[in-house]
Amino acid sequence: MPRIVTLTTDFGSGSGYVAEMKGRLLHAREPVTLVDIAHELPPHDVRAAAWLVAQACPAFPAGTLHIVVVDPGVGTPRRLVWAEIGGQQFLCPDNGLLSCALRRTPLAAARVLPVAPFAAATFHGRDVLAPAAVRLLDGTPPEALGPLVTDLVRLSWPEPRESSAGIDGNVIHVDAFGNLITNLPADLWPLVVAAGGLRVGDHDVTTLVRTYGDTASGTPVVLVGSQGFIEAAVVEGRADTWLSAGPGTRVALAGRRMS
Amino acid sequence: MPRIVTLTTDFGSGSGYVAEMKGRLLHAREPVTLVDIAHELPPHDVRAAAWLVAQACPAFPAGTLHIVVVDPGVGTPRRLVWAEIGGQQFLCPDNGLLSCALRRTPLAAARVLPVAPFAAATFHGRDVLAPAAVRLLDGTPPEALGPLVTDLVRLSWPEPRESSAGIDGNVIHVDAFGNLITNLPADLWPLVVAAGGLRVGDHDVTTLVRTYGDTASGTPVVLVGSQGFIEAAVVEGRADTWLSAGPGTRVALAGRRMS
Amino acid sequence: MPRIVTLTTDFGSGSGYVAEMKGRLLHAREPVTLVDIAHELPPHDVRAAAWLVAQACPAFPAGTLHIVVVDPGVGTPRRLVWAEIGGQQFLCPDNGLLSCALRRTPLAAARVLPVAPFAAATFHGRDVLAPAAVRLLDGTPPEALGPLVTDLVRLSWPEPRESSAGIDGNVIHVDAFGNLITNLPADLWPLVVAAGGLRVGDHDVTTLVRTYGDTASGTPVVLVGSQGFIEAAVVEGRADTWLSAGPGTRVALAGRRMS
Repeated sequence: MPRIVTLTTDFGSGSGYVAEMKGRLLHAREPVTLVDIAHELPPHDVRAAAWLVAQACPAFPAGTLHIVVVDPGVGTPRRLVWAEIGGQQFLCPDNGLLSCALRRTPLAAARVLPVAPFAAATFHGRDVLAPAAVRLLDGTPPEALGPLVTDLVRLSWPEPRESSAGIDGNVIHVDAFGNLITNLPADLWPLVVAAGGLRVGDHDVTTLVRTYGDTASGTPVVLVGSQGFIEAAVVEGRADTWLSAGPGTRVALAGRRMS
Repeated sequence: MPRIVTLTTDFGSGSGYVAEMKGRLLHAREPVTLVDIAHELPPHDVRAAAWLVAQACPAFPAGTLHIVVVDPGVGTPRRLVWAEIGGQQFLCPDNGLLSCALRRTPLAAARVLPVAPFAAATFHGRDVLAPAAVRLLDGTPPEALGPLVTDLVRLSWPEPRESSAGIDGNVIHVDAFGNLITNLPADLWPLVVAAGGLRVGDHDVTTLVRTYGDTASGTPVVLVGSQGFIEAAVVEGRADTWLSAGPGTRVALAGRRMS
Repeated sequence: MPRIVTLTTDFGSGSGYVAEMKGRLLHAREPVTLVDIAHELPPHDVRAAAWLVAQACPAFPAGTLHIVVVDPGVGTPRRLVWAEIGGQQFLCPDNGLLSCALRRTPLAAARVLPVAPFAAATFHGRDVLAPAAVRLLDGTPPEALGPLVTDLVRLSWPEPRESSAGIDGNVIHVDAFGNLITNLPADLWPLVVAAGGLRVGDHDVTTLVRTYGDTASGTPVVLVGSQGFIEAAVVEGRADTWLSAGPGTRVALAGRRMS
């Protein structure tokens, strides 16, 4: 049974809603290690949460239970599920939150959770997911949580495409430094090297580096980021500001016009 | 003796003051589970903290120790107290922080804490409350902390009132989504239904729902929130912005002029 | 071996990078208590981190392991180190992060960490420091981590100076309340009293108090802060705004022109 529980929500840092969930989780019979992953996700942004889940959760020990609550449809007929992916366990609404994780690793199993009549229609994190977590923490096997389900909601995700620009991709995530993480996987790096750089929106970034500190402060650079994707950055500056880019901005090989 | 300690302060997220308190607390002889409730409360805002305490703390297992430090009078003759309410234990300045919790549940017991001569006049959280917590964690009974006290400071709190508008109330709290939580308890919901909606400041909100996702994005709605109070929201939007409302904004039944 | 691990970074609150590090740390064989100190440090600001480390870390039980990652030179030849100072253990890049702690307490020992070939050039926190922490948590003695080193990078730090203004100092840190913490140690307080106050930039602050609540809301005051340094504040207001001051602003005895 899990001993580590992580929490990822859009409730806001310091939210009483998070505290209510933690209070419920600590009713488990044995000590639990609670880990906050993020509570400042953009409200209702299932895609941003799905990206973070896929980045962060695989780093935890097998059997860790990840509760993810970005749930604009709370209280509507959308399902709530337990799922296992790559040895990690999840409890979340079935609204696409696991889409990004499932692009990398197949679904091992999933179960639909019942919604008790007493559950507040606006807070299933507290009244459905936390109680299910406590049951798992107390030794209930996942099979007892509810019926099997295999067709989890999967959001479409922008994929890198071959095009007249060689490859077309998108910025997928902007981190706290303003670095632009794209959906171009690291194995396309030789193409970037051959093209002499990456086009980000209207800017060609032509300084290719191994790490930020390889060149002078303020220089826009392209590199392979720590998540295994090609990334544009500005040394000790914010690439999102300098390159006027954000989630969705198109990227291509340097010197190419995007169609 | 407590094994879970929560922290609620206005010190700011990432504050060294919070870290100093955690460091002291971890000197307890047995492992402690530390839980951050909030550190981003508006500075010196005792009422906001009192509301959060009343919302969040009852969710924790009985015996949890909640340290609450919003303390504009630190170092002045205001008292510091240990208190027990509804099975939860508290350590805080006696400045009204427990007012909201005490409106729901009676005081079981309270003790005044001595202030040691070495305590920094500006940081009793570190130098009075954290040492008292460690004593409790190490097995000292609360009776040994200091003399009994029964007259804790209680702040007045806006109450719903009968009026020419049927009922008059106020927005009490705005959550991270911009939802407006009022002081109208859920059992007044039939009155809202009969009136066809809620007046929030100068706006009549006439779409009544069970949960946010019951209607279209951008619609102002009224519903019973998960805390048991009537709430105004905007589906996937911010009601505080759309309705120009915040803590203190008056609410009444729809169609009524507020006196 | 350590049982408590703290984390201090500039990765941003809710960052997936922090979560990845926590996930790796929880692979230790025995339970670990993880404590977040701060993740909202100004990006790349080694000095701000060094100040926080020196403030917060000594409060923890001896043997606590503090991981500090503000690392603009990640992946360049700068060293990564394990260090022991005043009974606390640290894992961090050797870029000055321990400067401020080392001004108060001598270095007990330090070791250079090897960088494994698989380490991502942009994320040594995850790929070098976290694995070293897990080794320590699992019982590896620090001596086995790498060769001894004694010449850790030490940043210069503004020191109070005797001058025509009596003493010259600087604001070193602004806390979340806007309080201005200077580098003038508490033992200079009699000089401030004799001068009738402190000059902060272009403002003479002449109300001397023991704590904030000793005078009326909105009053600029000078006092001895809880860290042992002289501090300027505005009662229930922000001194940084009211006195147009911030890190680096010069301070002197009241009534003196600064040279």
